[in-house]
Amino acid sequence: MTVVQTAVAARRAGRALQALTTDQRVAALHRMAQALVDNAEHILAENALDVADAQALVESGELAQASADRLPLTEAKLGTLAAGIRSIADADEPLGRVIHTTELADGLVLRKETAALGVLLIIFESRPDALPQIASLALRSGNGLVLKGGKEARRSNTVLHAVLTQALAPDVSADVIGLVHSRSDIAELLELDDVIDLVIPRGSNALVRHIQANTRIPVLGHADGICHVYVDESADTAMALRIVLDSKLDYPAACNAMETLLIHRAVWASLGESLVGALESAGVTVFVGPEAAGVRTDLPRASSLAFEYGDLRVAVELVDSVEAAIEHIHTYGSGHTEAIVTNNTQTALQFQNTVDSACVFINASTRFADGYRFGLGAEVGISTSRIHARGPVGVEGLLTTRFKLTGTGDTVAPFSAGERAFTHRKLV
Amino acid sequence: MTVVQTAVAARRAGRALQALTTDQRVAALHRMAQALVDNAEHILAENALDVADAQALVESGELAQASADRLPLTEAKLGTLAAGIRSIADADEPLGRVIHTTELADGLVLRKETAALGVLLIIFESRPDALPQIASLALRSGNGLVLKGGKEARRSNTVLHAVLTQALAPDVSADVIGLVHSRSDIAELLELDDVIDLVIPRGSNALVRHIQANTRIPVLGHADGICHVYVDESADTAMALRIVLDSKLDYPAACNAMETLLIHRAVWASLGESLVGALESAGVTVFVGPEAAGVRTDLPRASSLAFEYGDLRVAVELVDSVEAAIEHIHTYGSGHTEAIVTNNTQTALQFQNTVDSACVFINASTRFADGYRFGLGAEVGISTSRIHARGPVGVEGLLTTRFKLTGTGDTVAPFSAGERAFTHRKLV
Repeated sequence: MTVVQTAVAARRAGRALQALTTDQRVAALHRMAQALVDNAEHILAENALDVADAQALVESGELAQASADRLPLTEAKLGTLAAGIRSIADADEPLGRVIHTTELADGLVLRKETAALGVLLIIFESRPDALPQIASLALRSGNGLVLKGGKEARRSNTVLHAVLTQALAPDVSADVIGLVHSRSDIAELLELDDVIDLVIPRGSNALVRHIQANTRIPVLGHADGICHVYVDESADTAMALRIVLDSKLDYPAACNAMETLLIHRAVWASLGESLVGALESAGVTVFVGPEAAGVRTDLPRASSLAFEYGDLRVAVELVDSVEAAIEHIHTYGSGHTEAIVTNNTQTALQFQNTVDSACVFINASTRFADGYRFGLGAEVGISTSRIHARGPVGVEGLLTTRFKLTGTGDTVAPFSAGERAFTHRKLV
Repeated sequence: MTVVQTAVAARRAGRALQALTTDQRVAALHRMAQALVDNAEHILAENALDVADAQALVESGELAQASADRLPLTEAKLGTLAAGIRSIADADEPLGRVIHTTELADGLVLRKETAALGVLLIIFESRPDALPQIASLALRSGNGLVLKGGKEARRSNTVLHAVLTQALAPDVSADVIGLVHSRSDIAELLELDDVIDLVIPRGSNALVRHIQANTRIPVLGHADGICHVYVDESADTAMALRIVLDSKLDYPAACNAMETLLIHRAVWASLGESLVGALESAGVTVFVGPEAAGVRTDLPRASSLAFEYGDLRVAVELVDSVEAAIEHIHTYGSGHTEAIVTNNTQTALQFQNTVDSACVFINASTRFADGYRFGLGAEVGISTSRIHARGPVGVEGLLTTRFKLTGTGDTVAPFSAGERAFTHRKLV
């Protein structure tokens, strides 16, 4: 099949998938989960070849060690993936959920229901675990799928794709999950705005920006994760230390890691200094903004306050109030995740209600911004867009809605003529 | 203010609007409604000047009569607009509505709430009534707004904008609703994908296509409205006639008017011929598709089955089954609105559950696809996109969501270490 045929076939197979019963879709997902377990040996053998090749590429400097580290699968990982698919299978049916029902007029009833989006194009790098996760989310939500994995995981992705699509029979067509490999395939797919409904790039900021700049198809994702922790004047010292260190150190490369620490000027001496000290002790290089530079002339200046370090570096800035912290976040942030540490309920709520980001936390680490931790089962990505889906995106973000109206021969003419009247009675 | 300053000011004022209480936002809307009534004389005087100029332009051939027809305001229209704003004001608060609440772990509670989108750019043609409608929907949903009206309604829009924004004081800044006039302003605004969150073009297909092709900002709207009525083999004759005529004739220029009539081959002789006859009697020119051409060689062939006539023309095609009708719609439709006429419940549900359009109707005219008729209060437009909002869009489509997490100093490290466990208990 050509790339275009792959996408068109995914749409057709997706529509057939939507027409199945819940039991049929759920059974197909359980077969997929079982197939991962049953074919573990074959999958791990193919994966081992990718891992060996990647190691050679790392040694020759053609692949980053971090990318190679994300490649290996294990029997335990396959078991976890299977369990994840089963839990997605057993969650409530997402399709056809009635959002509201309105009686428009006597005998004329409108329902707004959830429906599948259509065809998703998901582009992911190295980590082959993503393939079964994404495939199960797409299937659960009735969507056709075209996947493009990283070339370093080509054999792993190929075998995972084969195992999963074989398990779909007999009810679901294997066409529902297409797999493409090359960069030129992607370029072609990004042109198909009449076939593909949503692109989800999972990978580096550079990948996301490249996709956003090269397609008219809506893109769900985030290029930047410039997350802030604001330590208020009434913050508890131990809590501030705990949250600041966890937000920065738990996984510095993650998009939900803290990049800028805002400290209320009133607690700089009593608390700010020890936060900076604790970060430095943990191996973090601290850069200062213009205000913090006034109190710590010894520290290097941050070249920008809108920067995602993604490693053991952080920017620290002083603010004079919660309003100033919010203003700083609105000016320099990327709308991903921000946290306040405070014992003042009023200030906490002001921050949470005013900060215009996907995730706004009170007294909790920014690292909680994650589909699994949020209880969404799994996530296809985190969106910093305000359109369609925002924050960690699970099955819900892969749905749209449909209006279904059922009448008994109704026409609008009698309403225009004043012979009939709308009731607009909310039924559900 | 420059155009960019107008948009930035709208974002700032929108954020301030979101921070107000419900009562404050509702009071501002009621002041807007009252201002339309109180300033009727002034508004109508300015409108009369636009109408006079437009008539001159029509006579010199520079403006379409249809555009000129949409210009006039009356005291009664202003009263209706005021009533509409009051009903939007008195509807349930759309912001901060809790979608779900989950206990992630002991003492760690996540809420997903509705939030304002941010800044909307709405581009509309001639009809000045749109300005107060859109302004009230945007205000109700906490959004900043930049409006661009048609140049033929410039004086009407200017006075409406002045009257409405003056009524916003003291709680809401007048900056929350910006108004621009020129085409070059639009080009500049379409570049501002970091300030404007959503563009809604209301106007001709050409306008919508132009906007879609010239911005990276998400566009909500529809370029095409190729709506189908499928008359099934078990359709009631009188009902079929009524729905077909209403769908085509009630307002042929509307996007929800029928463009293609699909007829089951089995009822061509008994019903199809009379439907065609009734359409022709009503002044409709009937074109035939390849199959219908076989039974009506005398009628002109439709040059395309994916065509929006938007006037007293229609395409008619024969199909052999409901499946074939669905296939036809998926091939040639625009995903707007489709209706089936049938007395067979099974067939009706098959059609409604399978057709992949924003609105799918059983035994009702396609003309019901409208925000007012759907009971949404008013609409900012009809979306054929599957992303974000689909079908007629009211206040709900102008919202996004925000995740709010409240903890007591929680960090993710203890969860990774197995010292704490997620409960993921659904609270609401």
